[in-house]
Amino acid sequence: MEYRKIKDEDNDGGTISDDIENPRGKGFSVASVSNVPAREQSKWKRKSVVTLALTFLTSSQAILIVWSKRAGKYEYSVTTANFLVETLKCALSLAALARIWKTEGVTEDNRLSTTFDEVIVYPIPAALYLVKNLLQYYIFAYVDAPGYQILKNLNIISTGVLYRIILKKKLSEIQWAAFILLCAGCTTAQLNSRSDHVLQTPLQGWIMAIVMALLSGFAGVYTEAIIKKRPSRNINVQNFWLYIFGMAFNAVAILIQDFDAVMNKGFFHGYSVITTLMILNHALSGIAVSMVMKYADNIVKVYSTSVAMLLTAVVSVFLFGFELTLAFFLGATVVSVSVYLHSAGKLQR
Amino acid sequence: MEYRKIKDEDNDGGTISDDIENPRGKGFSVASVSNVPAREQSKWKRKSVVTLALTFLTSSQAILIVWSKRAGKYEYSVTTANFLVETLKCALSLAALARIWKTEGVTEDNRLSTTFDEVIVYPIPAALYLVKNLLQYYIFAYVDAPGYQILKNLNIISTGVLYRIILKKKLSEIQWAAFILLCAGCTTAQLNSRSDHVLQTPLQGWIMAIVMALLSGFAGVYTEAIIKKRPSRNINVQNFWLYIFGMAFNAVAILIQDFDAVMNKGFFHGYSVITTLMILNHALSGIAVSMVMKYADNIVKVYSTSVAMLLTAVVSVFLFGFELTLAFFLGATVVSVSVYLHSAGKLQR
Repeated sequence: MEYRKIKDEDNDGGTISDDIENPRGKGFSVASVSNVPAREQSKWKRKSVVTLALTFLTSSQAILIVWSKRAGKYEYSVTTANFLVETLKCALSLAALARIWKTEGVTEDNRLSTTFDEVIVYPIPAALYLVKNLLQYYIFAYVDAPGYQILKNLNIISTGVLYRIILKKKLSEIQWAAFILLCAGCTTAQLNSRSDHVLQTPLQGWIMAIVMALLSGFAGVYTEAIIKKRPSRNINVQNFWLYIFGMAFNAVAILIQDFDAVMNKGFFHGYSVITTLMILNHALSGIAVSMVMKYADNIVKVYSTSVAMLLTAVVSVFLFGFELTLAFFLGATVVSVSVYLHSAGKLQR
Repeated sequence: MEYRKIKDEDNDGGTISDDIENPRGKGFSVASVSNVPAREQSKWKRKSVVTLALTFLTSSQAILIVWSKRAGKYEYSVTTANFLVETLKCALSLAALARIWKTEGVTEDNRLSTTFDEVIVYPIPAALYLVKNLLQYYIFAYVDAPGYQILKNLNIISTGVLYRIILKKKLSEIQWAAFILLCAGCTTAQLNSRSDHVLQTPLQGWIMAIVMALLSGFAGVYTEAIIKKRPSRNINVQNFWLYIFGMAFNAVAILIQDFDAVMNKGFFHGYSVITTLMILNHALSGIAVSMVMKYADNIVKVYSTSVAMLLTAVVSVFLFGFELTLAFFLGATVVSVSVYLHSAGKLQR
């Protein structure tokens, strides 16, 4: 339960980008490229690479969680882990920037210093997640954990709606249909014998679930808007600022929630190899989310994490002897058709 | 269990058409109509009316079955009921023809006499259903009744595939996607706590389910081919011949299966008001299926009966206090999106 918070935050929040390892990626921060088809192809390639990376990292993330759960309860403070994830991403973005400065020199687009005007919007996603995480404590008074997993799929719909409203990007009617299917398919794949409890969720529970979905969707779409507002601005700088505020908000969370534990048992109490692996994985997933936001969009992000959910279940069959249900197969079929329809329904722009 | 046979046979088989009540319908057996847009509109209207009639009749059919089941087991011989359904449809087609002869006179298209060439194909659907019904007895050695209900949805896929292969009509890629979704959605809506048993179905069970789906799909598509091969031929004549063979095959079924019961207890033993209502409903559903085949196609038929399945569940909530499951809502959502996609994906022919 506790741990899910880390997962949510990192999956949904904006992030850092370490594109120095990918020389092809760097080429496109330069605006003028002569060969347009090659550029388009390369863009498409980069988009695919970051999407696949996000899918892979998200599925291994969930598997790490299952793995660590087999070892028992979490002994460490979740807030300290969250803080370390933000710090690690901040460090990675600085490292990436250092290499870029060495090869390209400091330019208007990659300098770290910023204006108040640019930076004022950066705390907003972090604030939204804080409110969402607070709400999460109250919603469990009305919904149990498996029910919450199912209600979380409302995220998909809210992301689609807010993507349309805030980013003013159009989805075709077929793509809308595909998005509804994605939500239905993910929920179907997660059905279990207790799922019908969700229908008995009282009105307060539904309202909170919808508000949480809207907060999380809004944070995602808002982060995309921030990152894309200045297309030529280096993603590592944008992420650096995003994560500075992430660190600040998580420091506040440590103070509120785990101050005593950290004081008495130390910052790193209860950390294990798996904890370290998870922090590493979350930081890398965060980087992948950020890259998907910069080079693709929130819709691609939602598809990527949905497919990751299915992959996790399949891999868990081999790793943990999970049994796949008929509901899973049906949900996976619907999600697959949805992925197809999303690309088939692409508007000719 | 027993009773399902009637339902299958009538839902899937070709039928009679009593279009004398619908003067608009009659107009179009005459080939030359001057006003083409009005004709198209009227065609569309007729198609909608028969589709809605089929949906309505199929849902009330299932409700009648539930209703009669509450009264206990079936006391009558199912084969005699089947025979009466065929006879009633035959009688209705003759009555319709008699009225047409009175108003229009006997023409080449509406005369009852036929050629060997025309009539030779008519026994084929009836023969296919006979084999399918025989197989049905053996499949229950491997699958239980709720599992069979779920496997029956393979019908949807086989109808789509055979429709494409035999009738050579194209579905667009979006429509194929919609058809896969229809199958997944119907299955999802029928999920229950024992559904996972289906995954344990042994290979023999799967093979038989697939063969049965192919037989039933083939019979449906074949009936459409027969009816549409001679577009100007009056539907009542076509149905008369279809049902003559239906009567003959059902007479054979009585001899094989219920000869003793009929001899000892009489043909109408165990009949009740509900039995009579069901026979009436099945005859009318048969007429609706036939009209959908003539004026629309098997794809429309499959959609119509799938939506009827959902309507039945909703109506059952009020009539029998059934509870809808989350799986039902998800399945209904997927089916609704599928209906939308089918029309959105219509090829510009």
